[in-house]
Amino acid sequence: MRDYSIGVDMGGTNLRIAAITTEGQLLEKITLGVKVALGRDYVIGEMCDAIHRLTDQYRGTGRFVGAGIGVPGIIDVEKGMMRKSANLPGWTDYPVRDEIERRLGARIFLDNDANVAALGEKWLGAGRDADNMAMLTLGTGIGGAIVLGDKLFYGMSGMAGEFGHVTIEPKGVLCGCGNRGCAERYASATAVVRMAREAIESGQAPELAKAASSDPEFSAKSVYILAIQGNPDAQRIFERFGEVLGILMADLVNVLDLDMFVIGGGVVSAWDAFAPKMFAELRERSLVYAASAPEDATAKKEGASAQIANYSRKKTIITQALLGSDAGLYGAARLPDLA
Amino acid sequence: MRDYSIGVDMGGTNLRIAAITTEGQLLEKITLGVKVALGRDYVIGEMCDAIHRLTDQYRGTGRFVGAGIGVPGIIDVEKGMMRKSANLPGWTDYPVRDEIERRLGARIFLDNDANVAALGEKWLGAGRDADNMAMLTLGTGIGGAIVLGDKLFYGMSGMAGEFGHVTIEPKGVLCGCGNRGCAERYASATAVVRMAREAIESGQAPELAKAASSDPEFSAKSVYILAIQGNPDAQRIFERFGEVLGILMADLVNVLDLDMFVIGGGVVSAWDAFAPKMFAELRERSLVYAASAPEDATAKKEGASAQIANYSRKKTIITQALLGSDAGLYGAARLPDLA
Repeated sequence: MRDYSIGVDMGGTNLRIAAITTEGQLLEKITLGVKVALGRDYVIGEMCDAIHRLTDQYRGTGRFVGAGIGVPGIIDVEKGMMRKSANLPGWTDYPVRDEIERRLGARIFLDNDANVAALGEKWLGAGRDADNMAMLTLGTGIGGAIVLGDKLFYGMSGMAGEFGHVTIEPKGVLCGCGNRGCAERYASATAVVRMAREAIESGQAPELAKAASSDPEFSAKSVYILAIQGNPDAQRIFERFGEVLGILMADLVNVLDLDMFVIGGGVVSAWDAFAPKMFAELRERSLVYAASAPEDATAKKEGASAQIANYSRKKTIITQALLGSDAGLYGAARLPDLA
Repeated sequence: MRDYSIGVDMGGTNLRIAAITTEGQLLEKITLGVKVALGRDYVIGEMCDAIHRLTDQYRGTGRFVGAGIGVPGIIDVEKGMMRKSANLPGWTDYPVRDEIERRLGARIFLDNDANVAALGEKWLGAGRDADNMAMLTLGTGIGGAIVLGDKLFYGMSGMAGEFGHVTIEPKGVLCGCGNRGCAERYASATAVVRMAREAIESGQAPELAKAASSDPEFSAKSVYILAIQGNPDAQRIFERFGEVLGILMADLVNVLDLDMFVIGGGVVSAWDAFAPKMFAELRERSLVYAASAPEDATAKKEGASAQIANYSRKKTIITQALLGSDAGLYGAARLPDLA
């Protein structure tokens, strides 16, 4: 008998549902082309039907311990409700968890998508050997989560890990959160496109301009492709991205001193375009990182950091996520088992 | 019978030693005019003699559970050794804890002065009702510590809480740590004096210039006195201090979402000169703070933050430390009981 749980990932265009054993083995994964735009009641109905099918299917396998659901937005984990979500307006002030619990007669857990992705990477991905880790999800913004031991660190109001809104440039670009110069204004897919548009408007980036005018779906990926093809304007955008991400990482290492930071999300595929600059900034800026960084990183530094380095046994690891978009599914499935 | 422990605070000019019950009641406090400059062996000898005197004195009171020692510098808590300390060069690479344990025949704990101060405030000071808190100690630099539940959060290499080295101005003033624009380059006693000297050199701050030339001990306190007397140049320095501290606090609230942040250290006495600007920045910049801040703080904000505010039950508290220089003594005395 192998106990199992259900993980649900509620993306913008797909609803993905997986049955996963409590040891982390995938039994079955279902992808439904259910757009969240079709409305709350419809989506919840489709979700519950699919979960029912899976629990019927695996009834003989073991005990069904419950389901976890990862959703984009700010979640009140205790209440199992959504506080705010840009893409799911009809979901706030609605008892999502309790309604699904009622329909399924099982324990349901609702959490933020960045949180469940971190939990997935900690359980079965890049962070499986880490004691404590944080994850940054680079997408339209920067999602963040902190996992201490096996548990998510929520903070007082469930909002710990808002890494994307750390101030990098006090007088910088205005952010939707009300702040200026937030990290995610420079190191996200949205930011790459903004910086590309600014370069185009300046009239100094002809290849970017050509790509943007010929491609109706001009995106961060388009800029990345130009960068790896050697276009200096596109490269400069990812260098700025890496610089800001490096400053953010230096801040996080100095504040948290975790053994691992995992970077995931769609834009992580541009790793080779931004990571060298990110690591360079990090080494220059974080005494805590320098204290644990390999020889080549600390050799350049003199004084305090180099001295401390001699005493440090362990190394801060900053690495790419391993599970891709499945991280959230695995992490969501982990929620019932951790509760 | 009341069990008790010993707390030791190793400052630069005094060695303070206190016997404190495990319930937090002070039995006796000794202040020795022992300068750490007199050398490691001498200081350790005087410290052990004083601890012996106290344990003899309170032998009948209860069980002596051990001693905690707060020292300035970077400590290897597991090894009970100092890694690095600007003021205690002869102490590194020396088994401080083991040597004192050997002499006293009791359990000894060595920790960083910012850490024990935080532990003291959490136990008996401003943070006594907080679940989780961080403390910032504003002095020559910015010391920092994170307390989750009753325990210090050390991070991987004991360096969690290096708040003073969070980057505020990426192209700003060079810091001893190798970074540029660290928070403590703008929000510490050292920074106040630097900013005052710069204002004097610009020839635009006559009252500061007069104060500096007439006072051989011109300090952050001198600048503060001018500020409360209404001098605009001195006020501007503390506004810049508050601005940078506000950006740092916004970053910390966004990353950690703790219920309480306690600000202590010598410069906290200038609270009225820097705090208004600090809170203004914090409200403008942290969506997590705005989500938990009182009405007047969020009223100005529109959109996301204001919406989130409606759902938040608790409030992030940012407040002054209560125990002054005794925080470290109490916190150090707490170490044996938490181990």
